[in-house]
Amino acid sequence: GNDEAARAAAARQNTLTKPQGSLGRLEEVAIWLARWQGRAKPQLDRMKIVVFAGSHGVTAQGVSAFPAEVTAQMVANFAAGGAAINQLAKVAGAELEVIPLQVEQPTGDFTQEAAMSEAEFLSAVATGYDAVSSDLDLVSLGEMGIGNTTTAAALATALFGGGADKWVGRGTGVDDAGLKRKATAIEAGLTRHRDILNDPLRVAAALGGRELAAMLGAALAARKHGVPLLLDGFVTSAAVAPLFKLNADALAHAVAGHVSAEAGHRGLLEALKLQPLLNLGMRLGEGSGAAVAINVLHAAVACHNGMASFAEAGVSDNSA
Amino acid sequence: GNDEAARAAAARQNTLTKPQGSLGRLEEVAIWLARWQGRAKPQLDRMKIVVFAGSHGVTAQGVSAFPAEVTAQMVANFAAGGAAINQLAKVAGAELEVIPLQVEQPTGDFTQEAAMSEAEFLSAVATGYDAVSSDLDLVSLGEMGIGNTTTAAALATALFGGGADKWVGRGTGVDDAGLKRKATAIEAGLTRHRDILNDPLRVAAALGGRELAAMLGAALAARKHGVPLLLDGFVTSAAVAPLFKLNADALAHAVAGHVSAEAGHRGLLEALKLQPLLNLGMRLGEGSGAAVAINVLHAAVACHNGMASFAEAGVSDNSA
Repeated sequence: GNDEAARAAAARQNTLTKPQGSLGRLEEVAIWLARWQGRAKPQLDRMKIVVFAGSHGVTAQGVSAFPAEVTAQMVANFAAGGAAINQLAKVAGAELEVIPLQVEQPTGDFTQEAAMSEAEFLSAVATGYDAVSSDLDLVSLGEMGIGNTTTAAALATALFGGGADKWVGRGTGVDDAGLKRKATAIEAGLTRHRDILNDPLRVAAALGGRELAAMLGAALAARKHGVPLLLDGFVTSAAVAPLFKLNADALAHAVAGHVSAEAGHRGLLEALKLQPLLNLGMRLGEGSGAAVAINVLHAAVACHNGMASFAEAGVSDNSA
Repeated sequence: GNDEAARAAAARQNTLTKPQGSLGRLEEVAIWLARWQGRAKPQLDRMKIVVFAGSHGVTAQGVSAFPAEVTAQMVANFAAGGAAINQLAKVAGAELEVIPLQVEQPTGDFTQEAAMSEAEFLSAVATGYDAVSSDLDLVSLGEMGIGNTTTAAALATALFGGGADKWVGRGTGVDDAGLKRKATAIEAGLTRHRDILNDPLRVAAALGGRELAAMLGAALAARKHGVPLLLDGFVTSAAVAPLFKLNADALAHAVAGHVSAEAGHRGLLEALKLQPLLNLGMRLGEGSGAAVAINVLHAAVACHNGMASFAEAGVSDNSA
């Protein structure tokens, strides 16, 4: 982060024709964008929403309300422009890139074996890393993967404790029995992989998924390149949680676009010390909540860059 | 409201390629727009943000952190394009209209006399009413008036009780002594006008302000013309509260764009049975929070109108 750019942005905010602080989080995110873009007047001209898709062996445990083939069907729907994220990317003025990670080949069922080998995990991380280039003004993450709220809850349980019941939710809409199957699968996974639970990256490989690993890689690349990072829902937050666990500063370049209706998300954001911008009861994934939040960033940047100062406008300020 | 359009919109939502309900409030506002626009596929092509400005005699009681002349200065800033609302209207794709109501002539100081005579009140209501035409897809309200959080808190106290301390807040930034002066002025106003406190419209005339009366008129016109109404912050909510007090259904065409950081706003929205879309810590007025919320409406409409159905996309739904 560029402290000087952040200071200059904060100083500019205090000259604009409004009571200081009265734009609330719009001021905060303008300064955050300034810090990570390294300029006092941030811009949002080149934005990318990256949606990673993956398939999950743990679906064999009956953890989802939708059949596993929906992942590939939804990738086709993204390509055809028919999904929510297609519409939301257009409204936000962001490029949408969808990156399927061997969707035809599910990860291992983590109740039986590691979801990914180290090589498979690193390959997925690298795919995500390569999706973020240094010329972006913002990258926004999303995902698609039937079964991946179970995967995400497994990561959250392994990294932050509290038992699976604290982290499981209804995902695409499982009933009470399905919710119980999710918790049971996660507890089985934690037992099977108990020897590696103190290593966040091995947790991500053993209990995670390819699209989650790719989001972790994208978050690393964003940090490396100084690109502000916008997170979406529960799965996105869980995907980058291993980085936070390794280094509490690792997500300083990230803002949570929203808190979803998925049960574990609010607690996960608290664990990650992230304050969501929006709370609209969304629980779709695909990067949809973050995409809506991009519009808030546009509003913030427009005010920051476009407003007149008290001096320019001839308005009396309250020190007069 | 058009029940048939709302039913058709709700039915359409349940065919789209997402778990039912997973777009949360985006689904809800799409159906709300459908109901009040009277069409299953709502649109947001013609939107107007109307900002009413007025001056307040109660500023003589030392209730604001800014001098009273700032109201006129900010009207000039709106005209020059330098205020927050100018930038936010552009981002939202909405026309901005600023309507000053005799800004050079403050209302009466309500601690001493009625803020407005009945004729003055009705004239301001008519100005607001005339600002909303039937061809609009949405009208969004805002205001500017140094002293008007005191006016708004006076209305809230008179209409909903609980004492002035429950409703006063720091407005543009008064200190503790200023906060106490606000509450004292309001209690004095309620005592002076105690004989009319059971009549919501006479309350609006005696304790309100011209820009608040105009917003009340605009809300009436929106209802008459079937135009969805987006409310901004504490002052906007207080302005339309007399209508709710007269008839609890009178604001069924309204959505609260946000809950502001002004202390009394959350309680006022609860009293009005409105759930805010956004909570961004904003407290500027000018219609700024509602303007940011328009972007959420764009997102909602884009998904509602643009997404593919399960059948169109060949995606298995969870009843399969």
